[in-house]
Amino acid sequence: MGASALEIINGRRSTRRFASDPVSETDIHDLLEAAMNAPSAINEQAWQFVVLSGAVFEEYLKINPNTPKGSPAAILVCQDLGAEKAPGYAVQDCAAATQNILLAAHAKGLGAVWTTVFPDKAAAVRSLLGLPGNVVPFACVPIGRPAQSGAKAAGSRFDANKVHLQGWGKR
Amino acid sequence: MGASALEIINGRRSTRRFASDPVSETDIHDLLEAAMNAPSAINEQAWQFVVLSGAVFEEYLKINPNTPKGSPAAILVCQDLGAEKAPGYAVQDCAAATQNILLAAHAKGLGAVWTTVFPDKAAAVRSLLGLPGNVVPFACVPIGRPAQSGAKAAGSRFDANKVHLQGWGKR
Repeated sequence: MGASALEIINGRRSTRRFASDPVSETDIHDLLEAAMNAPSAINEQAWQFVVLSGAVFEEYLKINPNTPKGSPAAILVCQDLGAEKAPGYAVQDCAAATQNILLAAHAKGLGAVWTTVFPDKAAAVRSLLGLPGNVVPFACVPIGRPAQSGAKAAGSRFDANKVHLQGWGKR
Repeated sequence: MGASALEIINGRRSTRRFASDPVSETDIHDLLEAAMNAPSAINEQAWQFVVLSGAVFEEYLKINPNTPKGSPAAILVCQDLGAEKAPGYAVQDCAAATQNILLAAHAKGLGAVWTTVFPDKAAAVRSLLGLPGNVVPFACVPIGRPAQSGAKAAGSRFDANKVHLQGWGKR
């Protein structure tokens, strides 16, 4: 690709429309590797990942329709409460892992979007995928080639009003 | 630099020992820009950032001593509950922003580490920095040149046992 890491970080935007061509196993592996190299509280790595495609992904989409349809694959990031050493921090571990997936996808020319698994859908997702009771579906990230030219960053979201020097409201 | 985004993502590790030479305003700006280009729930961007250094940072460290001492600056990432549109999701917004700070720091040859602000310290931090009541300190990220050669990734944390295909335990 050739873009710098800062360009990847600042240029990433959500992709919600996908081409149907498949994503390779290598691509999925690379995204999962990026996810698992995220930091976590006390290095607990309280995450698990389910790769979805085809009929199973379609069933998932019926349960949690806020995830866009049309991608050839998706990664379901799950909290592993059995691995959690710092209570309540699996959410942060999984958020960092999810962000790494989004960035790795963008770095590879793929599109992705972070979509939440609503708490009231967790039981149905757990049933569909046979997840143990201490595994909590967190976010579903559809992955694919962006349709057309894909999402473009319209501009930086940097907002100087959200930056405070040494105390609130100081510039 | 020259490292690819995937190399930055996979090679980032926590830095807890820092050289004392200062971090430039440009570096801090670049990290804040990366933070604010993170995704957020419904694009709510429910975050605020306080840049700490010198005496104020030292006072912060007395309150929350799990953050390593010795860096010339730090970024305190805060939840902005007043901006939250999806209740409970500011934590995820801030986690994504924090991860972007860590990656941008590594891309620039700087060291950083994600340290939590314990909930029972939030009131004291709020008092020190004059934060409004709806601003919740989330994570403090000290920033600086790594001491010695800095943190190195000993190896990938990819773990095939945490990957499930179409359902739990399927490989």
